[in-house]
Amino acid sequence: MLHLYTWTTPNGRKPAIMLEELGLPYTVHPVNIGKDEQFAPDFLAISPNNKIPALVDDAAPEGPLAVFESGAILTYLAETSGRFLAPSGPARFKALEWLHWQVGGLGPMLGQLGFFAVRSPEKAPLAIARFTAEADRLLGVMERRLAQTPYLAGEAYSIADIACYPWAVAATSFLKEPLADSLAGKPSLDRWLGAVGARPAVQKGMTVPAV
Amino acid sequence: MLHLYTWTTPNGRKPAIMLEELGLPYTVHPVNIGKDEQFAPDFLAISPNNKIPALVDDAAPEGPLAVFESGAILTYLAETSGRFLAPSGPARFKALEWLHWQVGGLGPMLGQLGFFAVRSPEKAPLAIARFTAEADRLLGVMERRLAQTPYLAGEAYSIADIACYPWAVAATSFLKEPLADSLAGKPSLDRWLGAVGARPAVQKGMTVPAV
Repeated sequence: MLHLYTWTTPNGRKPAIMLEELGLPYTVHPVNIGKDEQFAPDFLAISPNNKIPALVDDAAPEGPLAVFESGAILTYLAETSGRFLAPSGPARFKALEWLHWQVGGLGPMLGQLGFFAVRSPEKAPLAIARFTAEADRLLGVMERRLAQTPYLAGEAYSIADIACYPWAVAATSFLKEPLADSLAGKPSLDRWLGAVGARPAVQKGMTVPAV
Repeated sequence: MLHLYTWTTPNGRKPAIMLEELGLPYTVHPVNIGKDEQFAPDFLAISPNNKIPALVDDAAPEGPLAVFESGAILTYLAETSGRFLAPSGPARFKALEWLHWQVGGLGPMLGQLGFFAVRSPEKAPLAIARFTAEADRLLGVMERRLAQTPYLAGEAYSIADIACYPWAVAATSFLKEPLADSLAGKPSLDRWLGAVGARPAVQKGMTVPAV
């Protein structure tokens, strides 16, 4: 059985979407980060960085395996199922480069924008300006890519799309106000948001955990 | 032939260390980000995110392949060489989780600390406090992990160590002042820095590009 430890955040939803796409049975363990549940000692044993999401596969061939970091979890599920990530060749590395682009760029930069522009009561104009500009640049990179290919890795839907989708949704909802100018005039991003968002597994994954 | 487009930054050095470890011949193309050379149109064709590093393998089986994002480049080189990343099983996913931890956490957070605490002439105390605390937390996570295992992924040196090393060096040099308290009393981190830093390939990679 697969156990997903997660919460209602963009990173938390990435593995939920993947599990829904794969049609695999899994148990959801909500970890309420608003109540600091990620700091509980039993969760630390699974996720040494004290962050959600984490996955435990208690039927892994070598014995129960815990995997943390959403990008590593997506790769684990893709490689063990043989889906949404080509086993070799250009399609594989295009998917991995856009996956890493989300993990190292889109995610952290939108996350910081959320903190400085929305969540923090104290305002730091330098930080708001920096992360707004970086988010704008990243959304422009995504638009240019999606003007060339249907999905981020090319012709096929992959873990790169699964990784980016909840963050792109955050840009258009939670971060709508600071990113209003950036979101205007991005027809390829809009087309991709519509196509990915129409997938039943994506719709289901975006509601996990139900709290 | 392998072509590495890079500069003298922690992310830029990750693939250089890997190429040195593999003993593969490669051509270095310095991209001076201080002179905005990463925005040149011919570089954009290789690296659509306008960032270094990027790798071009013009002898890839399906034709010349460009890979951007340092984590994807390390994975490409590991999988095509069969070294520093197990092909399957727990050792593989421990390496990938710590690789993603660096790409999504250690790198971006130390990078932001560098901007706000060192490079920016304008000061934003809220941002300095935030990124100092997060860097301190991440270095603590690394210390706890390295107190349990010789290398980040476990018994064997892997692409996770290669990814984290240049950033840990940045913590002890460029970021030494804001992180003075965080760096004190981390014997496992010190032991790992010594072990990884003693490798000839690491020493060589840390001097690339020679400018």
